[in-house]
Amino acid sequence: MTLDPFLVRPLIEAALREDLGRTGDLTSNAVIPAEATATARIIARDPGRIAGLEVAGWVFTALDASVEVAFEASDGDDVGPGAVLGGVGGSARSILGAERVALNLLGRMSGIATLTARVVDLVAPHGTTIADTRKTTPGLRVLEKYAVRMGGGSNHRFGLDDAVLIKDNHIAVAGGVAAAVASARSAVGHLVKIEVEVETLGQLGEALEARPDVVLLDNMSTEELVQAVALVDGRVVIEASGGITPENVADIAATGVDVISLGWLTHSVTALDVALDVVI
Amino acid sequence: MTLDPFLVRPLIEAALREDLGRTGDLTSNAVIPAEATATARIIARDPGRIAGLEVAGWVFTALDASVEVAFEASDGDDVGPGAVLGGVGGSARSILGAERVALNLLGRMSGIATLTARVVDLVAPHGTTIADTRKTTPGLRVLEKYAVRMGGGSNHRFGLDDAVLIKDNHIAVAGGVAAAVASARSAVGHLVKIEVEVETLGQLGEALEARPDVVLLDNMSTEELVQAVALVDGRVVIEASGGITPENVADIAATGVDVISLGWLTHSVTALDVALDVVI
Amino acid sequence: MTLDPFLVRPLIEAALREDLGRTGDLTSNAVIPAEATATARIIARDPGRIAGLEVAGWVFTALDASVEVAFEASDGDDVGPGAVLGGVGGSARSILGAERVALNLLGRMSGIATLTARVVDLVAPHGTTIADTRKTTPGLRVLEKYAVRMGGGSNHRFGLDDAVLIKDNHIAVAGGVAAAVASARSAVGHLVKIEVEVETLGQLGEALEARPDVVLLDNMSTEELVQAVALVDGRVVIEASGGITPENVADIAATGVDVISLGWLTHSVTALDVALDVVI
Amino acid sequence: MTLDPFLVRPLIEAALREDLGRTGDLTSNAVIPAEATATARIIARDPGRIAGLEVAGWVFTALDASVEVAFEASDGDDVGPGAVLGGVGGSARSILGAERVALNLLGRMSGIATLTARVVDLVAPHGTTIADTRKTTPGLRVLEKYAVRMGGGSNHRFGLDDAVLIKDNHIAVAGGVAAAVASARSAVGHLVKIEVEVETLGQLGEALEARPDVVLLDNMSTEELVQAVALVDGRVVIEASGGITPENVADIAATGVDVISLGWLTHSVTALDVALDVVI
Amino acid sequence: MTLDPFLVRPLIEAALREDLGRTGDLTSNAVIPAEATATARIIARDPGRIAGLEVAGWVFTALDASVEVAFEASDGDDVGPGAVLGGVGGSARSILGAERVALNLLGRMSGIATLTARVVDLVAPHGTTIADTRKTTPGLRVLEKYAVRMGGGSNHRFGLDDAVLIKDNHIAVAGGVAAAVASARSAVGHLVKIEVEVETLGQLGEALEARPDVVLLDNMSTEELVQAVALVDGRVVIEASGGITPENVADIAATGVDVISLGWLTHSVTALDVALDVVI
Amino acid sequence: MTLDPFLVRPLIEAALREDLGRTGDLTSNAVIPAEATATARIIARDPGRIAGLEVAGWVFTALDASVEVAFEASDGDDVGPGAVLGGVGGSARSILGAERVALNLLGRMSGIATLTARVVDLVAPHGTTIADTRKTTPGLRVLEKYAVRMGGGSNHRFGLDDAVLIKDNHIAVAGGVAAAVASARSAVGHLVKIEVEVETLGQLGEALEARPDVVLLDNMSTEELVQAVALVDGRVVIEASGGITPENVADIAATGVDVISLGWLTHSVTALDVALDVVI
Repeated sequence: MTLDPFLVRPLIEAALREDLGRTGDLTSNAVIPAEATATARIIARDPGRIAGLEVAGWVFTALDASVEVAFEASDGDDVGPGAVLGGVGGSARSILGAERVALNLLGRMSGIATLTARVVDLVAPHGTTIADTRKTTPGLRVLEKYAVRMGGGSNHRFGLDDAVLIKDNHIAVAGGVAAAVASARSAVGHLVKIEVEVETLGQLGEALEARPDVVLLDNMSTEELVQAVALVDGRVVIEASGGITPENVADIAATGVDVISLGWLTHSVTALDVALDVVI
Repeated sequence: MTLDPFLVRPLIEAALREDLGRTGDLTSNAVIPAEATATARIIARDPGRIAGLEVAGWVFTALDASVEVAFEASDGDDVGPGAVLGGVGGSARSILGAERVALNLLGRMSGIATLTARVVDLVAPHGTTIADTRKTTPGLRVLEKYAVRMGGGSNHRFGLDDAVLIKDNHIAVAGGVAAAVASARSAVGHLVKIEVEVETLGQLGEALEARPDVVLLDNMSTEELVQAVALVDGRVVIEASGGITPENVADIAATGVDVISLGWLTHSVTALDVALDVVI
Repeated sequence: MTLDPFLVRPLIEAALREDLGRTGDLTSNAVIPAEATATARIIARDPGRIAGLEVAGWVFTALDASVEVAFEASDGDDVGPGAVLGGVGGSARSILGAERVALNLLGRMSGIATLTARVVDLVAPHGTTIADTRKTTPGLRVLEKYAVRMGGGSNHRFGLDDAVLIKDNHIAVAGGVAAAVASARSAVGHLVKIEVEVETLGQLGEALEARPDVVLLDNMSTEELVQAVALVDGRVVIEASGGITPENVADIAATGVDVISLGWLTHSVTALDVALDVVI
Repeated sequence: MTLDPFLVRPLIEAALREDLGRTGDLTSNAVIPAEATATARIIARDPGRIAGLEVAGWVFTALDASVEVAFEASDGDDVGPGAVLGGVGGSARSILGAERVALNLLGRMSGIATLTARVVDLVAPHGTTIADTRKTTPGLRVLEKYAVRMGGGSNHRFGLDDAVLIKDNHIAVAGGVAAAVASARSAVGHLVKIEVEVETLGQLGEALEARPDVVLLDNMSTEELVQAVALVDGRVVIEASGGITPENVADIAATGVDVISLGWLTHSVTALDVALDVVI
Repeated sequence: MTLDPFLVRPLIEAALREDLGRTGDLTSNAVIPAEATATARIIARDPGRIAGLEVAGWVFTALDASVEVAFEASDGDDVGPGAVLGGVGGSARSILGAERVALNLLGRMSGIATLTARVVDLVAPHGTTIADTRKTTPGLRVLEKYAVRMGGGSNHRFGLDDAVLIKDNHIAVAGGVAAAVASARSAVGHLVKIEVEVETLGQLGEALEARPDVVLLDNMSTEELVQAVALVDGRVVIEASGGITPENVADIAATGVDVISLGWLTHSVTALDVALDVVI
Repeated sequence: MTLDPFLVRPLIEAALREDLGRTGDLTSNAVIPAEATATARIIARDPGRIAGLEVAGWVFTALDASVEVAFEASDGDDVGPGAVLGGVGGSARSILGAERVALNLLGRMSGIATLTARVVDLVAPHGTTIADTRKTTPGLRVLEKYAVRMGGGSNHRFGLDDAVLIKDNHIAVAGGVAAAVASARSAVGHLVKIEVEVETLGQLGEALEARPDVVLLDNMSTEELVQAVALVDGRVVIEASGGITPENVADIAATGVDVISLGWLTHSVTALDVALDVVI
C-alpha cells in the first residue's frame, strides 16, 4: 500500500492540534522571535527499518507550508544507529512546534517496521507471508498497516467491511460452516473475499467444502498445521494465527502455511529511537 | 485525572468508524440476525493493572446505546490471569461490531498502567513521582496519560500550551537561562508553571537564580543528581529524565529527585492481553 | 449489505442541516405552536420496490428523538400505488421539518431499487447477478448501493480501496496484463480480489494466464461474450459491462456471464413518488 | 447564482474521501509509478448543456494541487457529442484517483442542466421562469440548483430558512390564510418573502387579501390557471406547480403564470455521459 | 425566529469543548466525588430582558443528559434583580463543568435582548421596527439575532446569501442603480428580496425606479429622512441606518421610516449579570 | 501569548461559512464580474488599541489565498481616529465577501484591547497585573485572551483543565481548604498550579497553610485587601476579583495585590469602529 497525503492529512492535523492545544507552543512563542529560522536533522539513534519518514515531513508542512523538508533515506530502508534520515529548515517556531508529533509518528511506525522486518527475516527461508491484524492503535490503523508493509509484511483486512471473516460464533448462529459461508456469499459482492476460521482439522474439512477463499487456522500446533496444509492441498490460501511468537514463528512457517498473522506486530511495539537535532 | 465521557466520545466514535468503514461488519450483518442477542465477558488473560475499562464500555454504548455494560473490576485494579473484568449484553451484531475497538483500547491502556505500576513499585521506597511525557501515541494522549495515572504515575504537560519547558535551544536563542525565563514569565499568565531543562550542575546553578517552578535534569549520572538535589535544597521541584531504564530507575530515585519522567511508559508498550468471550 | 444507523447518521444529519440552514423551518416555527403534535402517513404514490424506509425513519428521529415511527412495509417490498409504508407521530414542527429530507432519500433509494428490480427480473431466467458500479451520487454511495441490494442486485467495489480493478491504462504502464496483475498481487493483501478489464478475446486469454479473481469484459458483443464464457470455462468470475441497456440486458445475460454491472442503476434514476400525508 | 470554491470544497473533499476510502486507489498505487504523469481530456459523449465543469476541475486540484486544469468549454454551453470540454495534466495517480468523482459530479450536473434547458426552451415563447424545488439530492442541493441556473432555470428556496412557504397544514393550524400570513410576517424580518400555496380559486382570493409576495397554485388545471392569472392581475408573483410534465409544461406556461416549479428537474435526472480520455 | 436544538447543539458542544479542554474540570474532578449531586438556581443579578434561558439549559444537558433543568422564566420576559430564572439538578461535577458556558451564553444573549428592548421602547410611539445587522459576534449570529427578537426587535439578513443588498461599490461597478438591480434580479430567484442602499435623495429617486423591495437610507439627517419618506410614499419598505444612537433613535423613528437597523445591538453589548447558586 | 494561524484557521473558516451561508455573496456575485479587482484600506474610525489585525488578514486569505494583505500598524499599537491599519488587494468579490467577518473580529478584539489598555493605565503606578477571566464569548476565547494581552493585560486560565481553582463549593465538599488542596495536589501533575478562592481573612489564613500557588480574594474591601497583602507577605501570588470597576480599580491596585482579574474585559465590550474603504 501507499500513503496518500490527501488521506493522511486529517490525521496529522488532529495530532498537531492535540499537542498544540489552545494556544500552541507557549515556550517557543515566548522565547524565539517569530522571524527566527532553524535547520534540523532527523536522526535514528538506534538501528532499524524506517517507516513514516514522509509522514514526518508532512507533519512539518501541515503546520507551516513554508518549512522545507529533504530526505536522505526512504521508508523501507534499514539504517544504522546515528543515521541521518533527512533534514528540515524554516521557521524555528514551526520546526519546534511540529517536532514531537513528527517524531512520535516516525518512531512508532519505524518500530513496527523494524519488528516486522525481524519476523519476515525469520520466515524468509519458507517464503511465508507475514501479515498484520486489526489489533492496531485506534486512529492509526492506516499508518500502522503501512509500516507493516515497509517491514516487508502484508496487510490483513483494514476493517470489518472489506472482507468476510467467519468465526466460531458466526458458525454457531448460522448452524454450520456451510450455512455461514452461504449467507456471507449471498450478502456480499463478487469482489469480496471470504475467510473462515477453524480450530480443528475436522472443522477445516467441513470449511473446505464451503469453498471459502481463505482458511484461518487458529492456535493449531505445528503438527496440526502440517496436516492442514496437506488437507488443503493448495485449494485455498492458508493463514495461521494465535499463539505465535518470535520464537516459534519459523517453525510455524516451516509447516507450509501461506500466511502468518500476528497481532503483536502492531499492539506491542517498541518505538524506534528517533530524534531531531535542531540548530537555530 | 478523570476521563469525561463528553470529551472521550469523539475519539471513540472515530475509532469505531475506522474499524467499521463504509458498511460495517460484513460478516455479522450477513450471518447474524438483526434481532439476535448476545452476552459477553471481558477477560484479562494476563495479570496486570487495569485501565480503560470504562472506556471499553463507552465503545459498546457509542455504537449502540441499548447495549448494557456491567463492570466487575475498576480502573486501577490489579488483576490476575483469567480475571473477569465485566460483561456486556445486547444486540449480538453490536457487541461483535464494537469488540475489537473496545479491546484495542483496553489492552493498550492496561499495558501502560501495568508498566507504570511496575515502575512505581520500583521507586516506592523513595516516594518518587513517576511521570509520563509527550511521547504518546498521536490521538490518544488523554487516554494514555489517564492510564499512567491508573498505574500510579503522574502527568507531565498535556501539550505545548499548558506549561513552559525551556530547553537548550530556547536558552541559546534567548541568550541565557535568565533571559529565557524572563521572556516566558512575561508571556504567560500567573497560573502557568515554568520548567527549565539543564544538563550540568553549572547550568542548574544559573537556572535556579531565574527561579523557575521546576528544573529538569537531563541525562545526569546518579552522582550529579545527588549533587543537584543538594544544590536545589528544596527550593524548586526536581525532575530527572533521559537514559533512565527499569534497571536504573530505583537508583535514580534514591538520589532524592522529586519526579522521574519516562517516555517509554507510553511509546513502547506491551498491550495487556484482554479478550471478549461472547455467547450468542 | 445492511445499513448501520451509527454509520448513516452523519449523512442524515448533514442532509437535515442542508435543508434547515441557519434557523430551521421559518414557516412552521412561525405558524405552528411548539407544542402542537401531528401524525402522518408515508405513502407510495407510484408502484415500486421500496428502499430507504428505515433511513426515512432515522431522519425524523435524528431531528427529534421523541418522534415515533412505525413501518407497515419493509425495504425490499414491492408495493402498489397508494400503499401506506408507515407512519410518524410527534411534534408537528419536527415532522414538517424532517419531511423533505426523509422523502428525498426514500424516493431516490426506492427509485434505484425499483429500477434494479426491473433489470433483475429481466435476467432472472439466466440467474445472472446484476451489479452496480462506482457511478453513484457523491456522498450517497452507501445508501445507493444498499438500494441496489434491495432491488435484488449485488454490489461492486465501494471505492478505489477495497478491490483492484486493472484497466487499459494500468496495463499499458505496467507493460502487459501479467506485469500489472503481479504488481497488484504484491501490493495488496491476501484478502483483496483482483479484477482485470479486457476488451478483446485476445486480451482475455492473456489476462487468464495472470489468474485474476474476476475478468471484466468491456463493451463486447454477445457473440464475443459467448466465446469469452467458453474460453474462461469457469476458472474466474466473468463480469460484463459497457453498452448494456434494458433492451439488451437479457441477451447479455443469456451469454452465460456471471455478473452484469450497470452504471445507470444509480446515475440516471427516476425517483419513486413518495409523499407524507400530515394531519396536525 | 455562482459557485464559490471556498463553499464547495468541503463537499468535494467528502466525495473524494468516500471514493478513496482508507487507503486510496489500490490499483494505480500498485501499478503506476508515483512519478508518472498523464494528460487527459474531458469529453461529452452525448450532446447537452454543460454544468459542473469548474467543479470537476476543483475535484482534481482538491486531491492534488499540482494537477493543472484547462477548460475548452464553460458551464452553460451547449455541446455536441464528442465535444472536448477541457483537459487535465499532472500526476497519473492523482488524475486516475479523482476521475470518477469528477465525472460523477459533472455528469449529474450536466444532466440537470440539459433537462432544464429543454424545458426552458419549451416555455420560451411565453417568457415563463422555470424554477427548481427542494426535491434535490441530499448533500448536493447547491450544486444541483446551480445546474438548474446553467440550464436557464431559476432557483426556488435553498432551504426551510430562507423564505416562508405557507401550505394547507399551516393554514389549518393558523385558522386561515390571513392569520397564517400575519404570523409569518411578524416572525420574519423585512427581507424575507412570503409565499402561500393554494389549491382553489377561492383560496387564492382569500390569499391575495393577505398580501403575500408570491402565490403557489398547486395542481390547478390550465383553465383554473387562466382564471387565477386574471384574478391576481399582476399584484403578486404567480408560481404554478404539481402535475406538470414536459408534455404539458408549454400549455401551463401559456396561461400566463410567472414561474413554473418542477421537482423532476433534480429528483429524476439522466446523467449526461461524460468521460475522461487518459493518456499516461 | 425560533431556536432549534438540533441546529444549536453543535455550537453548544464546541463551547463546552473550548472550556473543558483536553481533560475537563481538573478542580471538580479532583475534589468532588463522581457520585455527588447538586442543585442550583439560575439567578439574574441585574434587571433585564431574558434571552438564552433554554440555550443555557441545553448546555447542561449537552454535557450530561441526566441533568434536569426547570425554568421559572421564559425568553422574552422582563425580570428584576435577583429573579430566579430556573434551576438545575444532577451530578455536581456536570453542573459545575457546564456552569460558565451556560452563563456566558445567557448573560450575553440577555444583554442583547435588554439593550434591544430599551431601544424598542424608545421608538414604540412610532411603531418602527428595530432590526439588527450582520455586525454580530462570529460564530454566534443565530443566537444573537434570536436575542434581538426576544428584545422585541426584528432580523435583517442572516448572511450574504439570503437577500441582496446593493451598496455604492456595486452600483459603481454596475454603472448605475438600475443596472445593478437588474443584474441582481436576474441572478436570484423569485423568493429573494432586493434592497438598495442610497445616501442622497437623488440616489433614492433613481433607486425607486429600479423597484427594489427595500431601500436603505444610510446616514441621512432627520430632514432628509422626512423627505425620503414622502418621496417613497409607501411603495417600498424604508430602512434607516448609520449614525443612529440611543439618543437620536426616537427622532429617526419619528420621520416615518419603517425599519431602523443598528449594529451596536450586537457588536457592543453589556452582558446581563447572571449567576448560578450551587448547593452541593 | 501568540496567535498561531494553524490554530486560528478553523475558527476563521467557520466564521466565513456562517456569513456566506449556502451560496455566498449573492449581491457581489450578481453585480461584480468574477475578474474584477479591488483594493481597500482598513481604517480605525475611533482611537484605540489595535488587536486582531493579523487575524483580519487571515480572514481575507482564508477565503481566497490570492488576496494580498499589507499592514501599516501592528497588534498592540495605539492609533488615532482615521488611522490606516493596512490594505488588501485582489478579487473584488473575495474582498467584499470577507469584509464583514474581518471587521467583526478586528472591531471586537480591538475593543477588548482598548478597554484593557485603559485599565492597565489606571493601575500602572502600582505595577499590578490586569488579567482576564473565563467570562469570554463562547468560541472566541483564544482571540479574546490574545486581545487582552495586546491591551497589556495577562491571561488567567484558558479553561477548566489548565489550572486548579478551588472555590467555596469545593471546599465545602472536601471538608476544608486543606483537604481540598491536598485532593487537587494528588490529582494533578507537578506542572499545574493551584489557586484557592477565599472571601474572608480567616479563610485566607487557613488557605495559606495549604500552600497553594495563588490565592483569589473575592469581593474584599480595600481594607481587607490591605490586611490580606500583609498576611500573605509575599508567600503566594495574590489575585483580587469581584466588584471591581474602572472607578475603583486603582484603589484596589493600591492595596498591593499582584493581580486583578476582570470579567468585563471580555463580557461587556464596545467594539472599536473599524471600516474597510473599498475601491473597485
